Amino acid sequence: MRRPLTVGVIGLGYWGPNLLRVLADDPEVAVRWLCDRDAERLERFARRHPWAQTTTRLEQVLDDPETDAVVIATPLSTHFELAAASLAAGKHTFVEKPLAPSAALAGELLARAGRASRLLMCGHTFLYSPPVRAARLMLDAGALGDVYFASSSRVNLGPYRNDVSVVWDLGPHDFSILLYWFGAPPETLRATGRAALASGIADVAFVTMTFPGGVVANVELSWLAPSKLRRTVVVGSEKMLVYEDGAAEPIRVFDRGIQLGTFGRPALSYRTGDTISPHLDGREPLAAELGEFVRAAREGDPLHAQSALALDVVRMTEAAERSLLQGGVAVAVSDGTVAEPRRFRPQAPDVLVEEPAA
Amino acid sequence: MRRPLTVGVIGLGYWGPNLLRVLADDPEVAVRWLCDRDAERLERFARRHPWAQTTTRLEQVLDDPETDAVVIATPLSTHFELAAASLAAGKHTFVEKPLAPSAALAGELLARAGRASRLLMCGHTFLYSPPVRAARLMLDAGALGDVYFASSSRVNLGPYRNDVSVVWDLGPHDFSILLYWFGAPPETLRATGRAALASGIADVAFVTMTFPGGVVANVELSWLAPSKLRRTVVVGSEKMLVYEDGAAEPIRVFDRGIQLGTFGRPALSYRTGDTISPHLDGREPLAAELGEFVRAAREGDPLHAQSALALDVVRMTEAAERSLLQGGVAVAVSDGTVAEPRRFRPQAPDVLVEEPAA
Amino acid sequence: MRRPLTVGVIGLGYWGPNLLRVLADDPEVAVRWLCDRDAERLERFARRHPWAQTTTRLEQVLDDPETDAVVIATPLSTHFELAAASLAAGKHTFVEKPLAPSAALAGELLARAGRASRLLMCGHTFLYSPPVRAARLMLDAGALGDVYFASSSRVNLGPYRNDVSVVWDLGPHDFSILLYWFGAPPETLRATGRAALASGIADVAFVTMTFPGGVVANVELSWLAPSKLRRTVVVGSEKMLVYEDGAAEPIRVFDRGIQLGTFGRPALSYRTGDTISPHLDGREPLAAELGEFVRAAREGDPLHAQSALALDVVRMTEAAERSLLQGGVAVAVSDGTVAEPRRFRPQAPDVLVEEPAA
Amino acid sequence: MRRPLTVGVIGLGYWGPNLLRVLADDPEVAVRWLCDRDAERLERFARRHPWAQTTTRLEQVLDDPETDAVVIATPLSTHFELAAASLAAGKHTFVEKPLAPSAALAGELLARAGRASRLLMCGHTFLYSPPVRAARLMLDAGALGDVYFASSSRVNLGPYRNDVSVVWDLGPHDFSILLYWFGAPPETLRATGRAALASGIADVAFVTMTFPGGVVANVELSWLAPSKLRRTVVVGSEKMLVYEDGAAEPIRVFDRGIQLGTFGRPALSYRTGDTISPHLDGREPLAAELGEFVRAAREGDPLHAQSALALDVVRMTEAAERSLLQGGVAVAVSDGTVAEPRRFRPQAPDVLVEEPAA
Repeated sequence: MRRPLTVGVIGLGYWGPNLLRVLADDPEVAVRWLCDRDAERLERFARRHPWAQTTTRLEQVLDDPETDAVVIATPLSTHFELAAASLAAGKHTFVEKPLAPSAALAGELLARAGRASRLLMCGHTFLYSPPVRAARLMLDAGALGDVYFASSSRVNLGPYRNDVSVVWDLGPHDFSILLYWFGAPPETLRATGRAALASGIADVAFVTMTFPGGVVANVELSWLAPSKLRRTVVVGSEKMLVYEDGAAEPIRVFDRGIQLGTFGRPALSYRTGDTISPHLDGREPLAAELGEFVRAAREGDPLHAQSALALDVVRMTEAAERSLLQGGVAVAVSDGTVAEPRRFRPQAPDVLVEEPAA
Repeated sequence: MRRPLTVGVIGLGYWGPNLLRVLADDPEVAVRWLCDRDAERLERFARRHPWAQTTTRLEQVLDDPETDAVVIATPLSTHFELAAASLAAGKHTFVEKPLAPSAALAGELLARAGRASRLLMCGHTFLYSPPVRAARLMLDAGALGDVYFASSSRVNLGPYRNDVSVVWDLGPHDFSILLYWFGAPPETLRATGRAALASGIADVAFVTMTFPGGVVANVELSWLAPSKLRRTVVVGSEKMLVYEDGAAEPIRVFDRGIQLGTFGRPALSYRTGDTISPHLDGREPLAAELGEFVRAAREGDPLHAQSALALDVVRMTEAAERSLLQGGVAVAVSDGTVAEPRRFRPQAPDVLVEEPAA
Repeated sequence: MRRPLTVGVIGLGYWGPNLLRVLADDPEVAVRWLCDRDAERLERFARRHPWAQTTTRLEQVLDDPETDAVVIATPLSTHFELAAASLAAGKHTFVEKPLAPSAALAGELLARAGRASRLLMCGHTFLYSPPVRAARLMLDAGALGDVYFASSSRVNLGPYRNDVSVVWDLGPHDFSILLYWFGAPPETLRATGRAALASGIADVAFVTMTFPGGVVANVELSWLAPSKLRRTVVVGSEKMLVYEDGAAEPIRVFDRGIQLGTFGRPALSYRTGDTISPHLDGREPLAAELGEFVRAAREGDPLHAQSALALDVVRMTEAAERSLLQGGVAVAVSDGTVAEPRRFRPQAPDVLVEEPAA
Repeated sequence: MRRPLTVGVIGLGYWGPNLLRVLADDPEVAVRWLCDRDAERLERFARRHPWAQTTTRLEQVLDDPETDAVVIATPLSTHFELAAASLAAGKHTFVEKPLAPSAALAGELLARAGRASRLLMCGHTFLYSPPVRAARLMLDAGALGDVYFASSSRVNLGPYRNDVSVVWDLGPHDFSILLYWFGAPPETLRATGRAALASGIADVAFVTMTFPGGVVANVELSWLAPSKLRRTVVVGSEKMLVYEDGAAEPIRVFDRGIQLGTFGRPALSYRTGDTISPHLDGREPLAAELGEFVRAAREGDPLHAQSALALDVVRMTEAAERSLLQGGVAVAVSDGTVAEPRRFRPQAPDVLVEEPAA
């Protein structure tokens, strides 16, 4: 058996313990360092992981030549600094999502990883979840026909964040899934929301996107909801797909649709076939994700597609936040500038608005 | 017992038969005329209503001095012309929603009703549904605390319309409910959507509104959905309310919320109390609505508030259609002009977008 | 076009109006008589059916040579007398379920129909419902593999009956469906229940049956339940089927099961495949049922299988009521006698009950 | 702070690891021994609990004078022997449910615990779950009025057991909950079921019970079900309660019922009030249960009520298994003998079964 990949885990707050648990269970990994600024918290985790060393100073981890890789689960504002230091120390680096607090910083991290020839991977766990992957397979196979639009809700009562808005907290989940499914970022997006609880931190937002080819998506993000819902509907010309994370049947495929006639007046018909809930593999997404990180670190696979997607997620999030701050103006995802709105049907006369007859 | 109100029913297509059924069951009403352009359809309904006269010509109904009131359930494009003729003939007039295909025409109808001293009422049935009324009572009593936002979905597989967009077909339902609950129209709104099936007729739309005081609402409208859903969530500082039309428990009130601390760093807390599904009165909304029309026609009650709301619904719908056609620009509901976007937090620096450290 | 079948409808209480509505809409039927003991009720229905004659006396209907068939929807205690008179007058006769208040009387009706060469049909509407028929097709095709057991709940808050127990009111629905699906009545059954509200009228009952071949079924019947549920699960070796009447997806087929190993210690495995909700035809069961009655009356089809099933339903219901009254003793369905219990595993020693070691 | 209670955990198969996890997290407990017959399994758990000693021999644990208590999670057939040895060695003893494979053995264990003055507790975890406790409080307060009946389903696809029937595996859960709620065991019960997969091991059973005072309960137990359901409905004269374990709202209280009139013919009325889902405390049942064991072991509290309930659970389970084996005969819970069936309404004539009029 090969020598395990030696890993330092940085940050043991909300999400870090999950990463630690999965890494500790992976026979291909040796958790060599636990690092957190809170000494008491460190002590608590040390008890369950007696073979790992603990430190409150990142430098100790980075200076250890026996450490192959670093896994970072700290607040967003620190992602760039910590990941840049890790890459500079020659460590393969995993950063929790989103990769960085701006597209410029995210791009810079990618560039540095390239120069250092080290793996940089961002923790978009949903891309490793069986329902998200099953939906991607169906979309790739064209099973839905032409995709018309997507509508998503990701809401719950908290957990509230006081460092970033709901757009930065929850948006990257939906943005990563839509990018993974549709293969390209939207051209423009708009976001409207509200900072209901604390001035300056939006706790609800509605983001509307237009993808190349005309696919429209609407994403509702909120920390203020009576119950948890994480549900995305994708409507195509042949099938409609409902993905509900955490449901007993997370993917449901509806063979339903409307056909219009082609000549003269429409001879409308409705198609209503069977509904199928495909059986999905039960693998834990986090284990699949970290397994991919470990494999790629060992094989020198730079995971270019994953990195490019992580950068696009930051571009979308940044654009959504900017639109939100400016009252919903259209923002171009490519460069974050305010965009010219794309008219829906510019050639058609605005027939519905008539003047009174007299 | 009083002499019944004599009524002519105009239009027996999709919705008219429902109005006819309720009117025929009302002991205070005598259905005197059935009017439709389709003679065969007329014949079919005549068999079940042998005491009513039938005609394919509206003039016959309007010229009959024994007819007190006219109930119109025809395509939107005919609402203005038919209702104007009915008022000119001195009949109390009920028009299916929306009142008219433009705010200008709707306003003109209201003015003519005023000059003719006749009742003009628009069929916003949801305003008479027990769950919508129960929610209004709770909102009026302040039971939800400060209202933060609303999020609504009104989707189904069809029924597809080839004369108007989904915004004109389904939007008035949500717009009327939000107006009834919040007491005033939004200042601006934006709409994004797509004409997936037929060029020029949007079959999906997402409408985002900002109300005076900052309440935000997002409404999803679609004829392309795998299953029927008519659900509105209203989130307030004290309670959250979920209204799902057609559900076994159409109103659910959740005693849930988040409180932030006030001094220095927030001491966050979550409130999670009981959830209540209030018992609701089982009266049929359509019977209540037409009962109100009959009562108001007899008592000379002009139902000013109802008319004003119906006009505001048309303003909102027209603004939403205009925004949709122009790619989602903000449109002022008051006058339908393109509005300056309201910045979310104009005073705050855009701290989240930093430059790379270099 | 053929002359329509002329029909008299007897009884316009709870269910009769539904039969009347469907018959009135059927172009192959002319409703010739409305008959009820309540003159005011008769008057109300006469207004909507002006071409039908009304009477409070059954003889008027039976004496009319122009009346081909009689449809009876009266209390159970009158079924035998009215149906026997109708057959004696040479009318094809439809009786609401259950056919008669005892197996002896039901058998006698069948014999009289045979002697009179007139159709006798019992209103087991569920046998004409698309989900029940779809399940039967799957069972006939062996799609479920070996059927192991069925479990059913038919509960609601009322409607309470003060003339018969819940076993006589709701039991025939489940009994008819199980007979239709499994093709034969159970050998024995037991029923336990309670007359919670009024002495002598059971308002909740649990009926357990053993079918030839070993299939077991449990049926819960109640007028005292917080919400309506009509759900039957059928578990087979290959598939499991859930039928929920009134649900958006009334039939769901689960490809799930457990396989045991064959040699030595079991090598257990679980099968978990896709779940399918087949699309079902939307025809109204009542229209299909009465359509069958009309067709059979015209063609001289005696519907022997339907009659035999209706008789078996009465046998099962009578046996269940008898078991209920005797505290749950096993009753043979064939002749209603108290049966010897069938031992579950007579050959095996009762190993689980050991004595203390010392 | 007090010295922690030192504990040996016996059995690390299906359930033992859960007990171990909770004990390890309890600051009042020191896990001193891990004991299992499988050395490899022992090794796996030892890695996560480096301070515990491991052994494959129970005697090592029992001979250690520094061990205060023993927690047993082994197959049912070993419960008596292991628990008796533990008590004989003077250890406080916790045994997974059910306490023993027969009422005689369970009674003997209780007697031995009494003689040894050591705590004997059985792991009926549901008695410590917040919804079960909330329902008990409501029942104790009379909030449901007169209780009429209960109906329960505890079904899932496996996990299949090859050592005991579904009655011994799942029955104790429902039996313990009903005993806890109703305060006394049923007088008699009947069970019908089937060994569909393997001869001699029932995998589905329907158990019907009659409690003193007339309350009836039906419990469905199955390892063969398309989806997990653990749901109990309790119907009372004033309220109806639905307990669904694992649901977002595990307790729902429906203010619904039927009232009959008192004089002459019943003037029937339906009561339909609000439905309430009370907020429940989120404490983990297993932690509450083991916390109770630790507290009682330290304070010398013999938990008599808990022990008596555990014995009654075994009595009920044994009676259910006996009835099942004998084809559903009524079995007295008190002494396990075949009971005389309690007639439902012995005084009333069997009016529904009439002879044909001839």
